[in-house]
Amino acid sequence: MGAPTMAWVDAGWRAVRVVAMYCAVIVAAMSTPSGVSAQPLQSFVDPFIGSQGKGNVFVGPACPFGMVKPGPDCDLGANSGYVADSTKPVFGFSQTHVSGTGGGPKYGNVSLFPFVGDYTGVHQPSLRADERARTGYYAVTLTRPAVRVELTTAPRAALHRYVFANAGKHGIRIDAGSFLGESPVPNAREAQQFVGSEVRVVSDTMVQGYSRVLGGWNNGSAYTVYFCAVFSRPAHACGTWKGGSLAPGAGVQTDTGEKTGAYLTFDGPAGDTVQVKVGISYISAGRAEYNAQHEIPAWDFEGVVARACDAWERLFQRIEIEGTAAQKTMFYTALYHTMLMPVDKTGENPGWRSSAPYYDDFYTLWDTFRSSLPLITFIAPARQVEIVNAMLDIYEHDGYLPEGRSGDCNGRTQGGSNAEVVIADAYVKGLKGINYRLGLEAMMKDAMIPPGGNEEKEGRGGLTDYQRLGYVSSSFVRAGTRTLEYAYNDFCLAQVARGLGRKGEAEHFLKRSANWQNLWRDIPDHGARGFIMPRDPAGAWVDSVQCDIVNGVRRYVRYTPLAFEWPICICWWCGFFYEGTSWEYSFFVPHDVPGLIKRSGGPAAFTARLNTYFDNGYYNVSNEPGFLTSCLYHWVGRPDLSSQRTREIVVQNFNTSAAGIPGNDDSGAMSSWLAFHMMGFFPNAGQPYYLLTAPLLDRSVVHLDNGRRFEIVAEGLSLVNVHIQSATWNGKPFDRSWIGHHEIMQGGSLKFNMGPKPSSWGSASTPPSYP
Amino acid sequence: MGAPTMAWVDAGWRAVRVVAMYCAVIVAAMSTPSGVSAQPLQSFVDPFIGSQGKGNVFVGPACPFGMVKPGPDCDLGANSGYVADSTKPVFGFSQTHVSGTGGGPKYGNVSLFPFVGDYTGVHQPSLRADERARTGYYAVTLTRPAVRVELTTAPRAALHRYVFANAGKHGIRIDAGSFLGESPVPNAREAQQFVGSEVRVVSDTMVQGYSRVLGGWNNGSAYTVYFCAVFSRPAHACGTWKGGSLAPGAGVQTDTGEKTGAYLTFDGPAGDTVQVKVGISYISAGRAEYNAQHEIPAWDFEGVVARACDAWERLFQRIEIEGTAAQKTMFYTALYHTMLMPVDKTGENPGWRSSAPYYDDFYTLWDTFRSSLPLITFIAPARQVEIVNAMLDIYEHDGYLPEGRSGDCNGRTQGGSNAEVVIADAYVKGLKGINYRLGLEAMMKDAMIPPGGNEEKEGRGGLTDYQRLGYVSSSFVRAGTRTLEYAYNDFCLAQVARGLGRKGEAEHFLKRSANWQNLWRDIPDHGARGFIMPRDPAGAWVDSVQCDIVNGVRRYVRYTPLAFEWPICICWWCGFFYEGTSWEYSFFVPHDVPGLIKRSGGPAAFTARLNTYFDNGYYNVSNEPGFLTSCLYHWVGRPDLSSQRTREIVVQNFNTSAAGIPGNDDSGAMSSWLAFHMMGFFPNAGQPYYLLTAPLLDRSVVHLDNGRRFEIVAEGLSLVNVHIQSATWNGKPFDRSWIGHHEIMQGGSLKFNMGPKPSSWGSASTPPSYP
Repeated sequence: MGAPTMAWVDAGWRAVRVVAMYCAVIVAAMSTPSGVSAQPLQSFVDPFIGSQGKGNVFVGPACPFGMVKPGPDCDLGANSGYVADSTKPVFGFSQTHVSGTGGGPKYGNVSLFPFVGDYTGVHQPSLRADERARTGYYAVTLTRPAVRVELTTAPRAALHRYVFANAGKHGIRIDAGSFLGESPVPNAREAQQFVGSEVRVVSDTMVQGYSRVLGGWNNGSAYTVYFCAVFSRPAHACGTWKGGSLAPGAGVQTDTGEKTGAYLTFDGPAGDTVQVKVGISYISAGRAEYNAQHEIPAWDFEGVVARACDAWERLFQRIEIEGTAAQKTMFYTALYHTMLMPVDKTGENPGWRSSAPYYDDFYTLWDTFRSSLPLITFIAPARQVEIVNAMLDIYEHDGYLPEGRSGDCNGRTQGGSNAEVVIADAYVKGLKGINYRLGLEAMMKDAMIPPGGNEEKEGRGGLTDYQRLGYVSSSFVRAGTRTLEYAYNDFCLAQVARGLGRKGEAEHFLKRSANWQNLWRDIPDHGARGFIMPRDPAGAWVDSVQCDIVNGVRRYVRYTPLAFEWPICICWWCGFFYEGTSWEYSFFVPHDVPGLIKRSGGPAAFTARLNTYFDNGYYNVSNEPGFLTSCLYHWVGRPDLSSQRTREIVVQNFNTSAAGIPGNDDSGAMSSWLAFHMMGFFPNAGQPYYLLTAPLLDRSVVHLDNGRRFEIVAEGLSLVNVHIQSATWNGKPFDRSWIGHHEIMQGGSLKFNMGPKPSSWGSASTPPSYP
Repeated sequence: MGAPTMAWVDAGWRAVRVVAMYCAVIVAAMSTPSGVSAQPLQSFVDPFIGSQGKGNVFVGPACPFGMVKPGPDCDLGANSGYVADSTKPVFGFSQTHVSGTGGGPKYGNVSLFPFVGDYTGVHQPSLRADERARTGYYAVTLTRPAVRVELTTAPRAALHRYVFANAGKHGIRIDAGSFLGESPVPNAREAQQFVGSEVRVVSDTMVQGYSRVLGGWNNGSAYTVYFCAVFSRPAHACGTWKGGSLAPGAGVQTDTGEKTGAYLTFDGPAGDTVQVKVGISYISAGRAEYNAQHEIPAWDFEGVVARACDAWERLFQRIEIEGTAAQKTMFYTALYHTMLMPVDKTGENPGWRSSAPYYDDFYTLWDTFRSSLPLITFIAPARQVEIVNAMLDIYEHDGYLPEGRSGDCNGRTQGGSNAEVVIADAYVKGLKGINYRLGLEAMMKDAMIPPGGNEEKEGRGGLTDYQRLGYVSSSFVRAGTRTLEYAYNDFCLAQVARGLGRKGEAEHFLKRSANWQNLWRDIPDHGARGFIMPRDPAGAWVDSVQCDIVNGVRRYVRYTPLAFEWPICICWWCGFFYEGTSWEYSFFVPHDVPGLIKRSGGPAAFTARLNTYFDNGYYNVSNEPGFLTSCLYHWVGRPDLSSQRTREIVVQNFNTSAAGIPGNDDSGAMSSWLAFHMMGFFPNAGQPYYLLTAPLLDRSVVHLDNGRRFEIVAEGLSLVNVHIQSATWNGKPFDRSWIGHHEIMQGGSLKFNMGPKPSSWGSASTPPSYP
């Protein structure tokens, strides 16, 4: 079996470096995986992948689903705080971040930063050098002041280590007034806005306080980040500030709606080290103190790194792969990105008390329902059960399932009500420990009760139209996206209803799931025929949209299948489609691809349409609506074409470089898409099967929760042998282009025989239809 | 002029006692009013009026619109915490209360209580004796332990004084886990529910912490009451608890979702006194400490009482009256009750930062729009401007105007969207300093955008029907109340729109304000003809409602004008009318009484209908829907009958006893109705005029904000001479039964000549119609 030498290998230098520096520190602490590789799997993680370009990933240390994510802030407008361009200085190390998001930033609260001499003000940015990042660890050298900064973290408390290069007076400030995405415009959309803050120097080794902020991308209500900073040795002096006024020696700044902070000063020789535990809580400073002292009981920086690594390692061991170091770097970094969010805040919910788990930062389900959560269902099914139960608890207390929930607020929906897909996915895959009757009730609420008021916060905006007309009309924004996604959401609801014996609801919503057809307009474009197009409430097709007047001129945008009217003509969120064109969205009927093929003119026309889409560049790799599209060839009996398209997308767009993720990683959405396709199977989320494509890895072994294992082997895979010739399942010939979830759960070995040319393998089957 | 000796005089003993004990303490501190009476007006306030029966008023000390209201808790189910029946023990003195509300209780947070010997547990209720209450002061003697407890308060900090009768070990516990209205049922409707708490003994004289609770009557989201208790001298020992576990000597209990508290122990001789300042804040414990130390800088209990009294006195001086002591007691107690809520929380908003004032506990506007807020507009117009601006700021940040807002949450609507009436009332009365364009925008949101999801939280539930059908159909609960109130709300909106030059909207909503007619069914009942009756979405009248099955039997309630189907047949909030019958509600067309008279069969039929209503007992004195009805005789040219009915209602239902308020006082709604009618004029809120009725007071002088005065004199008033014979306005004959707001604001003297028999005075005029 020849080692593949694919495009990404050259970019794998970073992973090698990371591994080298890593192993010395930590390898001894790791348990040896059950086979395949003796090197710790987390050593393959490179947090910098996706930190350049549009990936927007978080580069600091994190625990799986961890609440605290300390990291460098280099730009108030950066979603993760970080920018790769090292000519941009770093100005703080705040404790809370998201990973991979777009739009207005969120969090970036409670910012620490070192200073030398007397403390003179909060904004003292420094250029940076020698940045390192690996699982549970981030380090950077600040050039002025000359300080080496290292960060690690437990789930709810960060640990900072500052080594001051020069002797003398130096210290650390804690800013309770800064956060990402601040705007000078009051109540600016998507901008975080300051509400209040407080600091109290409790002793010469402890500072407590909070930062209260509202808004950000999901325009959520105010959230409060409490902190307790514990220093490794007593300070010589302290001070605080409020607004622009420094108060040396003053230990308390009470909340009067102004920005506050505190600083502690030390004296020491060159190489003087100060460590700070920063416990975080969303309910109280007392709880933050508990989190700091309970999760980081000692000043054992390496031990905290090791515990984070160990937590990751145990998850990564659920999937062992064979491949190049670069492939492993891409793969395990992808798994890593997939489990940075949502965030486990059980016991940290300021909104209600419940015996259910509590997760936040569903950011957003529109991104993660497609592959992130299905991947978590394999790696950490107990987590997935907790996540769904948390969603149902949110429904019970806040009235609707979450969508773009963050900062403890159901803030925003993008397209459909995709929590429904997540519930259906858990149901059809047989996840235990979920109250599916409650789940159905929550889905019904989405499907039946218009959210009203703010139609973008939760539930289904435009539902009044959808219920009355069978589509969301041009009276509502994002009408095309909504209609398509609601139709699929209805299908998901129908599946759960049917399973629970609720025949009436199952029939009703299954019928409604055909609603996408109500926006299908029989027009030609670039050789294809039939597209989802805008329609007014009276049923007439809408041919153009009137733009705002600019410089006295009113313009119109004609609706064509390639047109998008946002953000030039109308606002970003006001278009007929959300972040896409009709060419992209007219493929989104995941529950009825045969119906879609029929409306598109049959298998040949549909195949040609897919080819046009990919060949003409209508496909957008950087966004989620196209996640399933490269596999749609399966439904015309051409899984070979699915494999080829998918492989092209991976090779051209993903690699181990900092720019190695082609769009916003969106809480691991892009990453999990990659991980599934590297293994050779991909979920149609909400339905209990996977589409099989040519693996990019020699071998993948998924250790299932039930103790069995699911193996995919690509025998003979090489740079040339990339096409499936034939397959066996547990030794018997296997000619289906898809495999059921329940088949996988029985355990088994799926072996592909790879060859240099496409074959007709799998062409006789098409993926299952429900019901 | 003979002194009236009306029914309430006999009940006035309490007021006399209160005055006697009061004057010794405080009279020297008061400035002398400009005439009329040298006795401080606040000495007439008897906080116990309305504390027995259905009044539900708060009896503890309070400042005008004050955030903190410390008081005794005797029953977890009592809305104000207090029950008059002294065989019921008191079990705590908590810092937060509402006044006059019904339904599920709210607040009752941070409860202090003394103990003797070792602290053994939070629940140690005591019988009580010698209760006293006056403005800014409450005292009670606990029988076991034998402790005299006295309470006073600043706006945001309470001061407690405990005098222990016996020598020995004794102390005070602070319970961060108790609150009113707790239910064993999880997520019970209208029940407050525990979320979390924390306590920290900061020093031997200070305890800080918080209590986090959600729910209560308005089913609101979680609110957090932070506290800082400062003791007047160092404790000998301390302890804390969590759940059922006492922890003597432990100073901290961190929030783990369990109930916590702390206690301090002292040793002292008989008569030992311990004082405690309890600062409260809704944003932080630090702010609570600031409130305690800033508002109560010294241990000057009498000084705090005096400052509260002074604040009230300055407000009361805006209206000076002549009458008996009992009348003054009723009148000034009414003004007092009217200004206990809403609560000024400017600077204490955890939801956002704003330059606008912040008020909470609009509890509810359905109650207070009718007479409470119009009364505040006279006594404290600057406050009223702040209140309206706070409402608009809430609209800007929370998306809708408040209705039953409490605990920082727009929680619940009852009937209409009555914030609109409040805005219109301010507009038509010319209040300056309000952005009425923003006000119109907020009104339009109510009127145009269905609130969705939870249709009882804010905005107009059932608006989809109202917009489509012109009435709220039987598909929605409270359809009758909603249709009637929305019609009036539309009228209010139209007035503001017209004033701002928005002709299109003005016409549209003026037309919509006739929507009440769409539920007018031409059926007879007890001699009257035509009633607001339920109608289904297809336009058919609904004749009966199907009840839930009880003991296997399904029953029906026939809809008649006297029927109510709640709470026996369907839930309390699910009826066609909210807390009333069609007989009561079919009079509620405040903007088009002439139209109502016409639909009712003309003036004679309408007069007969009013007589039937009052004579047959269909009138319900204990609720707000009937607030205007006794004055409707004005529109048939019989203001003499309005006066007689009103006088009967007052005499039969209001007095100076503890049971002297006939229904829930509802944040001063009942009280303000009484106060206006004692003076002899009453607002039609939302419109710029007042209906004139025979005064019950010899003379009332309203000192207007512009420096002018408006005087009403009832010359010759006696037990016999209760009827208006004639009137003059500034010395000139005045034959109108109403007076305009802008006339009043010019200042002047309205003199009524009273006589023993009804006259035809005012019969030639009817109140103005708009437009």
